[in-house]
Amino acid sequence: MTDTVLPEDPEPDPEQAAITRILAARPPPSSSVLVDAGDDAAVLQDGTAWTVDTLVDGQHFDEATPPEAVGYKLVAVSVSDLAAMGARPQHALLSLTLTGEDDAWLPGFCRGLEQALRRWSIHLVGGDTVRTRGPRVLTLQLGGAVVGSPLTRAGARPGDLLWVTGIPGLAGAGWRDPSPTPEALKALHRPVPPLEFALAVAEAGLASAAMDLSDGLGADVPRMAEASGVHLRVDPDRLPNHPALVRDPMGHRFAGGDDYQLLFTAPPAHTPRLRAVAQAHGVLLHDIGRATHGRGASLVQGPWPEGFRHFPRVPR
Amino acid sequence: MTDTVLPEDPEPDPEQAAITRILAARPPPSSSVLVDAGDDAAVLQDGTAWTVDTLVDGQHFDEATPPEAVGYKLVAVSVSDLAAMGARPQHALLSLTLTGEDDAWLPGFCRGLEQALRRWSIHLVGGDTVRTRGPRVLTLQLGGAVVGSPLTRAGARPGDLLWVTGIPGLAGAGWRDPSPTPEALKALHRPVPPLEFALAVAEAGLASAAMDLSDGLGADVPRMAEASGVHLRVDPDRLPNHPALVRDPMGHRFAGGDDYQLLFTAPPAHTPRLRAVAQAHGVLLHDIGRATHGRGASLVQGPWPEGFRHFPRVPR
Repeated sequence: MTDTVLPEDPEPDPEQAAITRILAARPPPSSSVLVDAGDDAAVLQDGTAWTVDTLVDGQHFDEATPPEAVGYKLVAVSVSDLAAMGARPQHALLSLTLTGEDDAWLPGFCRGLEQALRRWSIHLVGGDTVRTRGPRVLTLQLGGAVVGSPLTRAGARPGDLLWVTGIPGLAGAGWRDPSPTPEALKALHRPVPPLEFALAVAEAGLASAAMDLSDGLGADVPRMAEASGVHLRVDPDRLPNHPALVRDPMGHRFAGGDDYQLLFTAPPAHTPRLRAVAQAHGVLLHDIGRATHGRGASLVQGPWPEGFRHFPRVPR
Repeated sequence: MTDTVLPEDPEPDPEQAAITRILAARPPPSSSVLVDAGDDAAVLQDGTAWTVDTLVDGQHFDEATPPEAVGYKLVAVSVSDLAAMGARPQHALLSLTLTGEDDAWLPGFCRGLEQALRRWSIHLVGGDTVRTRGPRVLTLQLGGAVVGSPLTRAGARPGDLLWVTGIPGLAGAGWRDPSPTPEALKALHRPVPPLEFALAVAEAGLASAAMDLSDGLGADVPRMAEASGVHLRVDPDRLPNHPALVRDPMGHRFAGGDDYQLLFTAPPAHTPRLRAVAQAHGVLLHDIGRATHGRGASLVQGPWPEGFRHFPRVPR
């Protein structure tokens, strides 16, 4: 599998460094912010959660991506963020930066967008369209209502089990395999975040920490470990298998990203109730590891595959 | 002045048509929306107002624009939207689409952004950075709390006076004049929406309708007339003069845009209180016309200069 291990970035992104600078220079947070920048979404004192996501042509999609998939996914990725906070999506604002040559592309995009807005009962309350000479840039802000206490990445405790929904890696196979299966392409183009499952888990207080699995296990597990101040040990043998993963199971699962499934921790005592909730919502659920004292992440079989942390986001 | 009149768009924007399609296809608004898409910001039932604005390189700014001005203005234009709804800005989410060649540009942009966030006590609660091969695209979503009843564009009644703050056209001179004055450039790069004035007017219930003056009087006055179902008659001789406007006063004021001042209507009986509030906040205030029965807009001197409705947004 070493041939699929990607080289690490030699240094941090200048863009990410800029955001870090901006965030560090902010005045102290007011009491109106319950969960500040750094989690899947911000949670305000009024119990609303807000997230923003941007898709860029040539980066997250390209001419070969069906425009319906782009419209649908623009909504789905933000639904995934809110699900991971235990918040039900309600209102969205849209910003479209288009090229003036979008006559053939826009109707499909709009159809996909509308399908997703209806699927999750989201009301679009505002928008902005501007013209660019360059690639399309599509931004959606999504707000919703937290159903219980907000789920954050920071609550994992030593002894908790680590859980994941769905089949991590299936979407990764959709863009990493030269001839992806229809199931892998569907996972890539039409992700279905486990919203109702996440809300039920949040409402019942079953999870200690949660985040959405968007950049692959390789990047996201260490993020949760860091936010919670624990060590997370993962057993890849406990991850679900699928015929579409066969070409490069570790690469697809750890470096593929785009899963938009839920990664969360919970005390072992909650296992029976978690399984019941998953069954009630038709969600695949696997315990794939455990939180222990310490920092960072490891595999049961050895050190964390650090090369999987950074990966190019290439479109199909 | 006819040489500055720009030709009208032969047909509506395909992008705007797409947004119109999306909005028309939405499910009926839920009861959680007090003011829906179409005003300066949406207002939700919890009394929060939300707006989104995007600035694109080559469209709203270019290499000659100081990066500090871009960062500052990204915040200011949304503050202007919330001011026009009678809402105090509180929380923002930022999406930066950058080119990977922004090392020299980003620090200045961040400084301008921070200055504006501090100026209006806005807490940045989330953000997203993505890479593009094309022009930079910067999007800010801003939320705030409505202080009274939300101000909308739809409340003007026959007999109301039409008011405007500041010096419309000054920012327009900043990009339309070949050698703009420092005051015009400052108005263009560092707009100061009359936030506290707008909040005081909203809290005291003095205005019947309000919107922010962002696209020039030529486009914005007819929009308010249409939203309110009245006719608005403007006397350009009542607009404030300024040496920077001398080259093309009608063009700058009607087609310039970028003013980020407040355009509003109020019953004549409110005039003394409005003048007192303006004086208390150091805001220039001029009554420039009147609402009557009917539709559309006109000048006291004759028909509305329709050619001023559409104008290219060119950067400096």
